[in-house]
This record gives sequence, C-alpha cells and structure tokens, in this order.
Amino acid sequence: MKNLLAAIAVLIVSSVTAAEGEVASAPVTIVIHGGAGALAPGRYTPAKEAEFIAKLNEALDAGYAILDEGGAALDAVEAAIVTMEDSPLFNSGKGAVFTREGKNELDASIMDGATLNAGAITGVTTVKNPIRLARAVMENSVHVMFAGDGADKFAEQQGLEIVDPEYFYTEHRWKSYEDALKREKEQKDSAINYDFKYGTVGAVALDAGGNLAAGTSTGGMTLKSFGRVGDTPIIGAGTFADNKSCAVSSTGHGEYFIRLTIARDICAQVEYAGKSVEDAANDVIHGRLETLGGGGGVIVLGADGAFAMVFNTPGMFRGVKSAGGVNTTAIYGD
Amino acid sequence: MKNLLAAIAVLIVSSVTAAEGEVASAPVTIVIHGGAGALAPGRYTPAKEAEFIAKLNEALDAGYAILDEGGAALDAVEAAIVTMEDSPLFNSGKGAVFTREGKNELDASIMDGATLNAGAITGVTTVKNPIRLARAVMENSVHVMFAGDGADKFAEQQGLEIVDPEYFYTEHRWKSYEDALKREKEQKDSAINYDFKYGTVGAVALDAGGNLAAGTSTGGMTLKSFGRVGDTPIIGAGTFADNKSCAVSSTGHGEYFIRLTIARDICAQVEYAGKSVEDAANDVIHGRLETLGGGGGVIVLGADGAFAMVFNTPGMFRGVKSAGGVNTTAIYGD
Repeated sequence: MKNLLAAIAVLIVSSVTAAEGEVASAPVTIVIHGGAGALAPGRYTPAKEAEFIAKLNEALDAGYAILDEGGAALDAVEAAIVTMEDSPLFNSGKGAVFTREGKNELDASIMDGATLNAGAITGVTTVKNPIRLARAVMENSVHVMFAGDGADKFAEQQGLEIVDPEYFYTEHRWKSYEDALKREKEQKDSAINYDFKYGTVGAVALDAGGNLAAGTSTGGMTLKSFGRVGDTPIIGAGTFADNKSCAVSSTGHGEYFIRLTIARDICAQVEYAGKSVEDAANDVIHGRLETLGGGGGVIVLGADGAFAMVFNTPGMFRGVKSAGGVNTTAIYGD
Repeated sequence: MKNLLAAIAVLIVSSVTAAEGEVASAPVTIVIHGGAGALAPGRYTPAKEAEFIAKLNEALDAGYAILDEGGAALDAVEAAIVTMEDSPLFNSGKGAVFTREGKNELDASIMDGATLNAGAITGVTTVKNPIRLARAVMENSVHVMFAGDGADKFAEQQGLEIVDPEYFYTEHRWKSYEDALKREKEQKDSAINYDFKYGTVGAVALDAGGNLAAGTSTGGMTLKSFGRVGDTPIIGAGTFADNKSCAVSSTGHGEYFIRLTIARDICAQVEYAGKSVEDAANDVIHGRLETLGGGGGVIVLGADGAFAMVFNTPGMFRGVKSAGGVNTTAIYGD
C-alpha cells in the first residue's frame, strides 16, 4: 500500500439553541465535496485555486440559501450539485473525464433520509444534469436505478434538459485523456493508476425540519472501460441518507467504496455502534479503506448537525456552511 | 401495506466439534434460495412441486460436494447457482422473465467474505451463466461492476459461454409476459404488482477454511423497464459477504432492497449490534422492509455456521445442507 499523506478535516458544530420566541429547528447545514485526489499544495496556481474556491462557495451558497429559507435538504443537495455539474472545473456534468472509447458516461444518485427514497442512474450520455435525472427516477418512476440508454430515454420522457454529448467536452479533459493513453502505452501503467482520477462532486444537507439528504455525481475515471459502474450510483456506497443515522457522499476509487459499502457502513456504525460521525468516518476511511489499499474521502452529516470531512488522499475539494456559523472551503489537507 | 402471510424459517446449526485426530474446521454449510413470492400451498401440482424440490436438492448437492471435499465457498456458491441458472424453473439464466420490450436482461453478483472482493453485472443479454461472468469481473478485471453491452463484451473477452438471446426463452415465461401485458391493459395494473415476480436465485456458503461467500442471479421483474437495475447486482443490497459478520443473498422487490441496503444492514447488525443472524434478518425483513411496504426474503449464514432463511411472502424456494447434519428443502411458509 502506498504511503498516502493522511489528512483529516473534522469539525463538530456546536448545537444551536433556539433563541426565546423562535421556533426550535434543526441547525441547517450543507457540506459539499468536489472530489478527493492528488491535491498537494503547489498543484495549482493561486489564480486556479481561487477559481475552485469561488465555485465551491457558489455551490455552498446555492444550497444554503434554500435551507435558510426553510427549504428541503433534497433541494439544497440538488442545487449545490447542479452548480458543480455546470462547472468545467469538476469531473461531473460539463467537464467530465473521458472513457477508454473517448466518451463521457455520467453517473449520479440521490437519497432522502426522511423516507429512504432513492434514485440512481449510470452510463448517461445526453443529460445535462445527471443529479436531476437521479431525482426524477426517485420521484417519478417505480424503480430506483436505471442504466445506459434506458436512463437517457427516461430523462427525455421526464422533459429534462437533453444535450448533445459534445456539451460535456472540455479541452482540459480531452488532453488528460490523450495523456493517459500515451502514458499507458509508454509505461504500461494500469488505467487506474493515474494521478487525478477522483473528481466526483457531492453534497449532504440538513434542513430546518430535521431531514437529511445526500447526493453524488461523477464522470467516473479517465480511461474507464465501457460499461464500468463505479460507486457513485450505488446506494450504500457512493450515497446514503437516513434520518436515524447520517447522510454521506463519497469520492474516490469507486471499486473499494462498493466492496466496503462505505456510505452505509459509516451510517451503520453511527446507528448500531453509537459512534460519532467523525469516529465512524475515520474508521472507514483510515481503517478499512486503507487496509484494502484504496484512496478517497467522504463528507458525513448527522441529524444533529455534527459533520465530518475525512480523506486519505493529499487533498479534497470541500466546504461547509451552517446556521452554527461555520462557513469554510478548502482544497488541501490540513 | 398488504397483509402478507408472515413465514419464518430459522434454524441454528449446533456447532460441530472436531473428532479426536481430525483437523478442526468450520462446519461447512450451504444455503440456497430460488426466489420468494406468492407461493401458497396449492399453487403447484404435486408433480411440479417435486420438480422444484429435486432441482433445489441438485443445486444443494452441487455446492455441498465442493465444500465436503475441502473446496472454496466461492466455488460452492457458483456451482449451486449455475445449477439453478441452467434450469428453466427459476427466473435466472434459462427461463428468465421478459422485460417490457420482450427481452431477457440478466443481473448477477458474487462476493468473497475473506477478501471483500466482489463482482457484479447488470443488463447482460448473451451470457449463459451470469454468475460466472460476475466472478470473472471479480477475478479478472480492475473493476467491480459492468452494465449492459460492456458486460457482454467483457464476457466474450473472458471466453465465457456466449449464447444467442433466444437461449433464455421459455414458453412459460413468454406466456407470463403476454398475460402481464394483457392484465396491465385491462386493469391498468402497475407493472410491479404482478403475482410472481421474485424468482431470483442465490446461495451462501461456509467452507472448511472458515470463509464465507455469497452470490445472486436473476432475470429481474416481468415487464421491467429497459435499463432498470434491481438489487441483485448491487453489493450490499442483493449480495454481501464478510468473514467478520455473515453472508447474505436477497430475493424480492429489488427497489426496497436497494433503499434499505438489506444485505449490508443484516451483516452490520451482526457486526456492530452483536445480533444473531436470525435476529438481524428478522429485524430487516419483518421490521424495516414491511414498514416500507416491501416483500421478499433473504438467506443468511454466519461464520459459525448459524443460518437463517427469512421471508415475508407466503413462500420462498429454499434449502440447506450442512456438516451439522441439516439437509432440507422447502417451498411454502411453515
């Protein structure tokens, strides 16, 4: 196993006491990530760093504004993720990485902690905002998950915004694709050993009604094989939310996240072992995931507003905004 | 929620003590299912019942023979499932149900409790034994899950037996498909309300080395939408195995099984709450699943040989064979 620079960012929101005359409500909070990976200081120019931080803040603000007005956690999660999907900076929606065949195949999932309703899609090629499709599957179909053309077809029936596959193209990702192909040829590298492969985005939110929600969206891995499904659309791996325990969104080497059912395991440790979200996330990321040799990170939010952002990669794009007064974004490990 | 006839079949294998001079080993056990559903006494003729029971025994024997010779739990699981896939009696492989488009789309997954390695495929149309493909994905690819044409393509590369999609056709299932279409038209039934929809097959095994494995294979639901993914290929929903806790294979209304991460939840309750496999399975099937209004069942096997077969439908095709002396098969609830 590689010696990964361990980095933990865990903060606990102190519980918010309702002021006299105010209706008691949950401490509304949104936590987001834009992917974990080989993000060491110096990787980006200060100007590029500022661009990432500005977009993370935009996504946080989009979600938080909804919570602040008494809106639903699901709406906040969707709004934050759409902001990142629409940005070419992250590996989801516009700016997704390319598969081995030079295409963009998108995955997403969303889950409502109040009802345990969930929606997930994998291998979508024409839907501008995969997270909106995951939500449409959750709300408007009798199924939970659709794959491939069936998912694209459902999106059309639902009247979601359909784009030409060219829409997802960015010069930056195409260059990464060509570089990856070249490096693989020269060095016989395995396709999964490339530097920056974890650009998934995700959000978890707690609304004033005390409901949790989680969502995740990704373009997957550069050079991924045709039809490969990662953890992002797998309920219990990439995404999980249950008001009884917590909400989780994952980013990382998806195969390990599926095998460990990372999102469900964290919430199970909270639910059955009585752990804090911080302890549960540390056990899974720094314990189980590292034992198997995997890399990545999670954002976790409890029904009391306690949250954790834990990763075993050098960095993870991340941010939090809460009624408890937290308002931070970060890229690198502490 | 419908008043389902609750039926539980739970047996605990007494631990086997190695005789003097014998090498101490785990009490080898295999548990199988051939689907849960509207299986009330009188549904089948005695001759048809005998056919089902004979095939269940054949599957049990195929798996148990491997365990008895010191073979691996994974091999036993695969052998038992292949036997059921090759039989037109069950909704997997030959005899799979038809999708809305009148096609057969097959799903399967397998997991090794010793390593947490896993393989899963969904939407396969040309692979004779989907469980073998799931195992090939686990052992011979860097990925865990493949969907659609990508999965079929990988099967070809692996030299697995490829068949014409016609191979999966049976007159019986085609008639069910036509009946379902007709009933839907006449009664405006939802596609998911049909009588016998849960014909998935699965197996869990414990080998002499103390390793657990689990696997599941299905043709899904009659009239399922193009691209719909059920719980069978979802690690943590349809299949889960971890030597630390237990091995589970699920059958039922897949959407509920995904939302509840049924297989992982049972093993989490064993791992973190210290429950027996029986108590954990009862909590999930008779508690959580019924609360959401879902139907189905699970087979569960612990590392000590304790097992449970729990369902909230009128019946579940099932069987157990163990070194502890258990050798039973059943269809209806007790």
